[in-house]
Parts: sequence; structure tokens; C-alpha cells
Amino acid sequence: MAKDIEAAAAGGEYTAKDYSDPPPAPLIDAEELTKWSLYRAVIAEFVATLLFLYITVATVIGYKHQTDAAASGPDAACGGVGVLGIAWAFGGMIFILVYCTAGVSGGHINPAVTLGLFLARKVSLVRALLYMVAQCLGAICGVGLVKGFQSAYFVRYGGGANELSDGYSKGTGLAAEIIGTFVLVYTVFSATDPKRNARDSHVPVLAPLPIGFAVFMVHLATIPITGTGINPARSFGAAVIYNEDKAWDDQWIFWVGPFIGAAIAAAYHQYVLRASAAKLGSSASFSR
Amino acid sequence: MAKDIEAAAAGGEYTAKDYSDPPPAPLIDAEELTKWSLYRAVIAEFVATLLFLYITVATVIGYKHQTDAAASGPDAACGGVGVLGIAWAFGGMIFILVYCTAGVSGGHINPAVTLGLFLARKVSLVRALLYMVAQCLGAICGVGLVKGFQSAYFVRYGGGANELSDGYSKGTGLAAEIIGTFVLVYTVFSATDPKRNARDSHVPVLAPLPIGFAVFMVHLATIPITGTGINPARSFGAAVIYNEDKAWDDQWIFWVGPFIGAAIAAAYHQYVLRASAAKLGSSASFSR
Amino acid sequence: MAKDIEAAAAGGEYTAKDYSDPPPAPLIDAEELTKWSLYRAVIAEFVATLLFLYITVATVIGYKHQTDAAASGPDAACGGVGVLGIAWAFGGMIFILVYCTAGVSGGHINPAVTLGLFLARKVSLVRALLYMVAQCLGAICGVGLVKGFQSAYFVRYGGGANELSDGYSKGTGLAAEIIGTFVLVYTVFSATDPKRNARDSHVPVLAPLPIGFAVFMVHLATIPITGTGINPARSFGAAVIYNEDKAWDDQWIFWVGPFIGAAIAAAYHQYVLRASAAKLGSSASFSR
Amino acid sequence: MAKDIEAAAAGGEYTAKDYSDPPPAPLIDAEELTKWSLYRAVIAEFVATLLFLYITVATVIGYKHQTDAAASGPDAACGGVGVLGIAWAFGGMIFILVYCTAGVSGGHINPAVTLGLFLARKVSLVRALLYMVAQCLGAICGVGLVKGFQSAYFVRYGGGANELSDGYSKGTGLAAEIIGTFVLVYTVFSATDPKRNARDSHVPVLAPLPIGFAVFMVHLATIPITGTGINPARSFGAAVIYNEDKAWDDQWIFWVGPFIGAAIAAAYHQYVLRASAAKLGSSASFSR
Repeated sequence: MAKDIEAAAAGGEYTAKDYSDPPPAPLIDAEELTKWSLYRAVIAEFVATLLFLYITVATVIGYKHQTDAAASGPDAACGGVGVLGIAWAFGGMIFILVYCTAGVSGGHINPAVTLGLFLARKVSLVRALLYMVAQCLGAICGVGLVKGFQSAYFVRYGGGANELSDGYSKGTGLAAEIIGTFVLVYTVFSATDPKRNARDSHVPVLAPLPIGFAVFMVHLATIPITGTGINPARSFGAAVIYNEDKAWDDQWIFWVGPFIGAAIAAAYHQYVLRASAAKLGSSASFSR
Repeated sequence: MAKDIEAAAAGGEYTAKDYSDPPPAPLIDAEELTKWSLYRAVIAEFVATLLFLYITVATVIGYKHQTDAAASGPDAACGGVGVLGIAWAFGGMIFILVYCTAGVSGGHINPAVTLGLFLARKVSLVRALLYMVAQCLGAICGVGLVKGFQSAYFVRYGGGANELSDGYSKGTGLAAEIIGTFVLVYTVFSATDPKRNARDSHVPVLAPLPIGFAVFMVHLATIPITGTGINPARSFGAAVIYNEDKAWDDQWIFWVGPFIGAAIAAAYHQYVLRASAAKLGSSASFSR
Repeated sequence: MAKDIEAAAAGGEYTAKDYSDPPPAPLIDAEELTKWSLYRAVIAEFVATLLFLYITVATVIGYKHQTDAAASGPDAACGGVGVLGIAWAFGGMIFILVYCTAGVSGGHINPAVTLGLFLARKVSLVRALLYMVAQCLGAICGVGLVKGFQSAYFVRYGGGANELSDGYSKGTGLAAEIIGTFVLVYTVFSATDPKRNARDSHVPVLAPLPIGFAVFMVHLATIPITGTGINPARSFGAAVIYNEDKAWDDQWIFWVGPFIGAAIAAAYHQYVLRASAAKLGSSASFSR
Repeated sequence: MAKDIEAAAAGGEYTAKDYSDPPPAPLIDAEELTKWSLYRAVIAEFVATLLFLYITVATVIGYKHQTDAAASGPDAACGGVGVLGIAWAFGGMIFILVYCTAGVSGGHINPAVTLGLFLARKVSLVRALLYMVAQCLGAICGVGLVKGFQSAYFVRYGGGANELSDGYSKGTGLAAEIIGTFVLVYTVFSATDPKRNARDSHVPVLAPLPIGFAVFMVHLATIPITGTGINPARSFGAAVIYNEDKAWDDQWIFWVGPFIGAAIAAAYHQYVLRASAAKLGSSASFSR
């Protein structure tokens, strides 16, 4: 699409509305199922989610091992990457994986993002379901690799599973997941808005950085509360491999919360921020 | 505007002054009040400031809880995200929120930024006042969410409120807020300069990163002095929810300081850096 | 190539396949050997790898010295840059060195990256071998500088050499190196894909940031396991200067692992992600 | 210059050498002295260096105060931003200040950078000298502000002055400064190379990020050795305000080292990397 715009610019003509919303994706697209590009995208989502969980859970386990005074001696108390390093691992991996897979699958790597884009009719139902299955399988494999590598420490340090911390109610955990996912999916919608793309054709390339930062930010804020899910595949994969009661008891929070947050973000973007643009024309205000 | 420039480039003609300053915004623009785009912008400022305070104050409270040796045992003394993580939370949130709201509201999220842009006649008086009200309400709601989620720890750990630290005079705190806000608003003006936009049409998309870094930097330097305000809505929202005498006694510092800093930055940009450009033509010096 | 595309855009014509894969590099290119540009590239790889090892190993040694309670007193236990700072040093140096050398040598700075690009026929065999020799020599010189500067501490703090940590099997170390290098080389291929370049001519300039982040991420995850190699020149240079049995015993892991990981990444990119694109045309799915 | 290129692209014609080196700057340019743009640039350098030293030295002093167990109690031992935070402060400030001043003064903020660009004949002698004076005055004022704000702690915590640490020889300190400045000025030359600008017209806007990261990296590596100067104005400003014998005794290291490093970087860029390009044509190798 970027090229169409540039061609129009070179020709010196502008229509009043210089971007076009792509038509809504059909719920079921039979033709899509015959294309290799769909299966390639599903493979890319699987591999990306596997790498995401492998790197991030390995960081969590390695950090807890390093800072365990009993295991490493008191000098090592500050030796690990810290909660800040864990938050960087989650945010940074999303940055590079969205960068790498954006052109192949759209770079979801998260069922909540897939749901938000499905609700906005940007992916078909079939594609959305295939993505979610691939993401969950990838997450299980990624955490499984960490368990294989860190067998001595994996269970002792909690397996990277999301659980509600002591002292917080289920309602608080659910609300934290809803708002955290809202921050992420709101950023995804802002970065992939066709109106923005029309103005700045290079936005798709820059989008992964704020999306990764959104994940980083939410982890800084809610690791003390829930360990931060905002990605049902991440929480599910860790729960499957860790497989302790507490992780399964809290599991619903990490599906219901992100899905509600993604739906609210989709609605906010479509009905508050974008609907008006279509009806009333572009804002006359300045924009940076 | 970026497109006008590209079209001119394709036609191969350049005027001596290849950018145009937009006309100054009127103080009161009656027509603006009839447009949905204004109210959409006000909603976006409200939501963005709410998310900003929610994430950042949750990070502060969670960090203080984690590092409280009495609560978590001595092993956890270094377990939190640290002051560095808190500074990242403030800077990173401004990065993603300016990125997300730039196209809708201009991405102020800070009454001091709004004042600076109003003084430079880039927003109307009506819009500036509506933005400031929305920012303060958003900040109150954001801190309120954190209090609701962290009820056990919120008051014990200071509620994220800005207060002058022991051992610093009121004059020092005020000066620190003035210079800190100058750094931020100077960066905002540099990033949104129409002269720069003319040369590099993609600057508006890149601008959020240095603006977020400016906030990050100022927090590194002045958290030990005032906790770092440089955003009256942030300080006001935290004071309303925390509601202790000390926070209210120092509150004026976090309004007067940022407003003075923003005004100096606007004057520096308009009268030192830009005025000459208009009068004497573009600098012949090289620029990176 | 970017310019060709722009010219085509200005002319308003598009072919169905608007990017062209460059022809595969010959195995041995006699003409290449007569060009100064080859030797300049080899010099740039040498200098970049020297700077990479100098900065990163100096960070490791300085950190271990600062956090050594015996040397600095207990107050300094948390005084160093931390494992997070070490991971930043590796990732950040790759970011700036790829940025600086991309236009001269392609910015490999890593024999595994060179192997991956050779397997994809993007560099000739002669160039690949010369690069690898230059990278290893540069790494030796870089670590040698650190030993010269930090003579009192270099050996005591392990010389920045990669060794398998206690409690991990050789298979785990090898697998960690394979997956870590896969993450890096997959990012390199994604960033230098001609299909992506056609759509966004500025990608080459942005590519160094995700590549640097990939290195940063892998270090966060695997420093506790192997110290993180994913770069045979880095491991070899440190082993040559440190020269202890343990480092040499484990050295094969840091050559075999990265080379396998790079080969898998090249195959994944060529046969899964790209082959289909060439055969079946561009995906109809949206991309951010 | 970017626009010339774009116009040429639109016309579909390319010369063999599609970029032009600007003519070398004269040693003394009388006309330049009559232009407001020169004085505006000098003011911008003064203000930027002032802000640079204010933020960075305030971070150093605040960190040392927070981690001083005697002053804050043992719980605060990990409470400060850490050496990593200090390195971020230096690198991040260079990022935003180069971003802000690039279009006004070229964004030097460092006499070593000014020397390097003068040796490459990119600035006149008069401009170079005026910049250096402005940078030194700005640095003095910036550190002076910190001393005013932090009077109780400034001298106790070393005033942010650069001194050789115990256990390192003068030769080591000098060499560390030379190589560190080489990394910085090499990055500056790579980012401002007209050949690169021709290919990617948006490079000037992206350049501040790798330049800031170069400063960040060098601080991670050499804070334990010299505190990291690589900027004579930074070292001089801190020495003037701190004014202790040790800082003055070592001061020459922080002028001689950076100037030698900048000269080597200029020579490396001009005679190794660029000279050949002019003589033998653009490299046929791929570049990311």
C-alpha cells in the first residue's frame, strides 16, 4: 500500500481521503486455506512463540538461580539480571520477533493480539484460530526446552508460570491483566492504523519498537501482582510444563483478562478513535 | 504536509524556504468546538494520562514492596526493578503514549507540554484548557486504580506522590523542576519543528523516542531530589489520591516549576533557535 | 537497490514482483580479489571485532572487580553494572558496530553470521574465509588490550572466556548455543531480506537495532549457562588470551553450536519463509 | 541535500557517483562571522553541554548518596540507579541532545567530536574554537548547578570528576580514553558520511541513537578505570567546580586521550574507509 501512496504523490494528485481501509477480512475464507502463505504464517507464529518463551523463561529461571543466596553464596545476591532484566527480556523479544515475523504472519505471537485483530476484522476466523493453536503449541515447546536445559532448577524456581501473588485478590489480578493487555493492544492498533501508514509509509517497520516497549512497561508494573501474563499462550505454555495446581487454578485469569483487555482496546480504537475519522474527516489539529 | 513536500520534490521545484510555519492557532476557535476531533483528542489525553499514572505508580509501589526487607526477607533486598526501572517506566510510557496519541491529540499527556505549545500558539486556548482538565482527571483515575489494586501497600509506600526529599530546600526543588521540564519541552519543540519536518518527513514518527528518553533522563537525575514531577497532572493526581499534608504542602512546586520550565523552553526555541531562521535564512552549516 | 525502486515508483509502474533477489554470490570471485573494497571490508571487520571484544570484556572484568566484596568492601556488592549491564554491552556494541560497518563490509562481526550469509550465497567463499580470519584476529587483539589494561584482575575474574557453568551438561550448552545463534541469524536474515527492502527502503538503516537487541536478549537468557558465545570469534579470542584448560576444553561448543544454529536459520529463512514467496507470490495477508 | 537526491530519483537519472562530498570548510571564513546562524549554533552548544553535565553529574551524586549505607541505612544499598543507570544517563543525554541540536549546530557537545570534524574539514577553525569554548563554559555551568543543588553531598561524593582509579597506570588511563573516544568519533563519522546520506536520506535523523549508544557502551567499559571522560569539556567542567588536586593532576589524560582518539578516528574514516570509495567506486558487496 505504501507504494500506491508514493505513486500518487509523484503524480501530484490527492484525494480528500488519502488512505484506504482494507476491506474487512471474511470470517471464513476458503481460498486462503489453499495458499502456502497461510501455513507459512502459522509456522512463523509457532517458531516465534517458541523462541519467545524459551528466552524469557530461561531468563527468569537463570535469574532466580543466580540470586538464590543458598545456592550461590551471599555475594551473588545482586548477581542476576534483576526484575528489570526480566522485563527487558519479555519486551525485547516481542520487539525482535514482531520485527522478524511482521512481513510473514503479521507478528502476533499472542492470542490476545490475534483476538483484537480478529474483532477488528483484520484476520479471518480460520486464520485467527490456527494462529492461536500455533502460539499455544509454540509456547509449550519453548518452556519445555527450558525445563530440559535447566532440569535441576526449573521446578524449584517456579517454572516461569503466572500465578497470583500473595496478598492480591482474584479481582485485582484480573483487572491488572485487562489493563495491561489494553496497553499492549492499543499500541498494536495505533501502530498498524492504515491512516497512519498513509502519512508515513515507514511506520510498519518502526512499529515493533513501541509494541515491544509496551510489553516491557506492563511487566515493570505488574510482575509483583501476577508475574504479568497479557499473553494467554505464554501463561498456558508455562502452566502445561510446570503443571502445579496453583498455576492451573489461576489459569483462567490469564485467558479472560487478556481477551477482555484486547476487546476493549479494539472497541476503543474502532469506535472512539477511528469511527469519527471516517465520518468527519481528518482532524485539523497539528500532529507530531 | 509531508506529502506536499514530496509532490514538490517530484516536480523538481523548490522555493527558497521549503517549509511553512503553520499559522498561529487562534486563542478561541469557535468552529473547533463543533468538531468531534477535539473531543476525541480530549478523550485520548484522558486515557493516555490514566495509563501513564497507572503503570508508573504501580511500578513505584511494587518496587518499594519488593525491596522492603521487613516484608520480603533479606534475600529480596535487591529484587525489585530499582530506581533505574522506575525511570524506565516513566520514560518508556511517555514514548509509547506519545507514539499512540500523536496522530489523535498531538500526544501531550502533560499540562506543561500543553502550556509550552499554547505559548508557541500551536494549540488554541480552549483546547489547551480542555487538555489540562482531561490530563488531571486521567491522572487521578490512574493513581486511583493503583490504590484499589495495592490497597495494602499504597499508603505505606508513599502513593507515588512527589515530595521534596529531606535535605533539599524549596528553591532547589523548584529549580530542579524548572530545568527538568526545560529538557523535556525543549526536546518536544525540537522534535516537532516544522523546519525539521520539511527536511525529513518521517520525523513525526521518530519523535516519541527522544521525548521518552528525555523523561527517562530527568528521572535518573532528580528522583533523589523531588521524586521528579515535570508533569503537573502526574503530581496532582498522586496528591489527590494519597492526600497527605506533605504532598499538598509541596504541590505548588510541581505546578510552578514545570510551567516556568516550559515557558523558558518555548521562548528559547522561538526567539533564539527559530526566529533567526525566519529572518536570516537557513544556516549554511552542515547538519547531521 | 532502494533507488531503483523509488525511480520505478516515480514512473508509476510496478511489476508483479517488485523486488529482485540479487544473484547468488560465486564461490570464488577472482575479480573481487583485485578490488580495494574487499580489503577495506576485511579491515573494517577486524577493527569492529577488536572494539567489540575490548568493550565487552572490559565491562565483564570491571563488573566482577567492582562486585568482589573482598576487594571493594561490602558496600560495593551491588555497585557494578550487573549481568544486565553486561548483556547491554554485548547487544549495544553489536548495534553500533553493525550500524557503522554495514555499508563497508555488511557488518558481520561474527563468523556464524558470515557462515549463514555464505550458505545463503550472499557472500563468496573467499570473502567469507577472509572475514572469519579477520574476526578471530580482531577478537584476540581486543581481549589482549583488556588483559594489558586490567593485568591485575584479568585472570582472577576469568578473562571473559566462555565456559560451561557447573551443573549443565555439554549437550545443554551446545543446544543453548544453537538456539541462541538461531535467534541472532534469523533476525539478520529478516532484516536483510530483499523483499522487505523493496517495501521499505530504509530498512537497512534500521536493521542494526533489532540485531543488537537479539544479541542482548540471548545474553540475558544464557549467561548463566555458558556465558553466552553465539559468536565463535568472541569465544576464540577470549580463550587464546585467557588460555586455561577449561576454556579450551569447552571451545568446540562455541564453534559447533553457533555454526549449526546459523545453518538452521539460513535453511529456515530460505526454504520455509522465502522459497514459498518466490513460488506462490506475495502473501495476501496484511502485514504491519 | 536529501531533497536534491530525491529530485534526481524522480527524474530517473543517476550519475555514477550519486552523492557529493561537500567542499572542505575553510580554516577561517570571514563571512561566517557575520551570520547569526554561527552564534545561534554556539549558544545551542553551550546550552546542550550545560544540560548534559547537569543531568549526568546529578545522577552520579544522587546515586552515590542513595547507596551510601551510612547515610541511608543498609536497606538502601541497592536503592540507586547503579553504574548502569549512570552509563544510561551519559548515553541517553547525548542521544537527545544530538537529536535536538543536530539541525542548529551539528550536535557536537564534545570538543573531541569538534576536533575530529575539524580535522576532516567539516567545520572551520573559527567555528571549532568557538564551539570548544562554549562547550567548556556550558560544562562548568552545568556542574555548578549540581553543586548548588546538592551542596551537602557534592564534595563528599567526588563531584562527578574524572580521576584515574587506584591500581591503574597513567598509560592505561590514557589508552582507555583514546580507544573510547575512537569508538565515539568513529560512530559519528559513520553516521554523518555523505555517501550513506545519499543512499538513505533519513540517516541524519536516526544518527543520534547509535551515537548515544556509543557513549553508553564506553561508559559501561571504562567507568571502573577512569570514570570515563571521552569528552574534555565534561572532564574540565567537573574539575573546575570540584577543584581538588587529584582531578587537576589527571586532567591532561582527559584532553590528550580524547584528542588522539578523535584524530585516529578521523584518519581511519578518511584514509581507510572513504579514500578508497572516492578512488575505486562504490563497493559491489551487499550492504544491510
